Amino acid sequence: MGRHPVEIQIERADKAIVAEEFDTLLDIYTEDAVLVIEPGRTVRGKAGIRKAFEAIAAYFRHGLEVRQNGMEILESGRIALVHANTVVSAPGSPEAERKAVYVFHKEEDGIWRCAIDNSYGNEIVADGTES
Amino acid sequence: MGRHPVEIQIERADKAIVAEEFDTLLDIYTEDAVLVIEPGRTVRGKAGIRKAFEAIAAYFRHGLEVRQNGMEILESGRIALVHANTVVSAPGSPEAERKAVYVFHKEEDGIWRCAIDNSYGNEIVADGTES
Repeated sequence: MGRHPVEIQIERADKAIVAEEFDTLLDIYTEDAVLVIEPGRTVRGKAGIRKAFEAIAAYFRHGLEVRQNGMEILESGRIALVHANTVVSAPGSPEAERKAVYVFHKEEDGIWRCAIDNSYGNEIVADGTES
Repeated sequence: MGRHPVEIQIERADKAIVAEEFDTLLDIYTEDAVLVIEPGRTVRGKAGIRKAFEAIAAYFRHGLEVRQNGMEILESGRIALVHANTVVSAPGSPEAERKAVYVFHKEEDGIWRCAIDNSYGNEIVADGTES
């Protein structure tokens, strides 16, 4: 069995983040993609996503490492839901594993691109008020 | 601000599950929707999803209760990613809260329907082999 094209796109994205190759990285997102920067804070569209990744690279002093420690892909039609254990680290920053969620969309050109990038997963949910 | 149409669909689905109104419930899923029955086990398509919910209803002796304890919706184009704290209970079964993930697709008729239903969230991911 070959690897899912979405898994290959995620690997490309991780390499592009580490190498700070933002043109390559942005090509993996849809035009109106949404990125969760932190719980409660999102940015939409390629220009905003580029700025966010530039800021992240600077924050980690250009030493960011990203890898996936396990992944599951659920596909329906032109939509793929990805659950991944995404491990982020940098010199001086302890390794952190996030239960990330990504949604990919197979676009008109047949390429799967990331439409929703939420590396915080369920952490973005505030508990509802119990009645 | 009105409620997101996806939130209203989820409320309809929860009521339909509790009332065992499967025609109403199935209308909230896309034709080729994927449902995670348990980690590692999925079913695809309306006929299979109906059978799964019939089995779930019987398993909980027709006393299943479902409610959402907090929810976040991220939307991009015709795709919406839902993170929800889904609380499931039944007489004789302790209340269990799941960090559920649902993906909805806005179809040609303008209705948002569930394309991927994974109430287990990140639990479906097996840890990758560390090198």
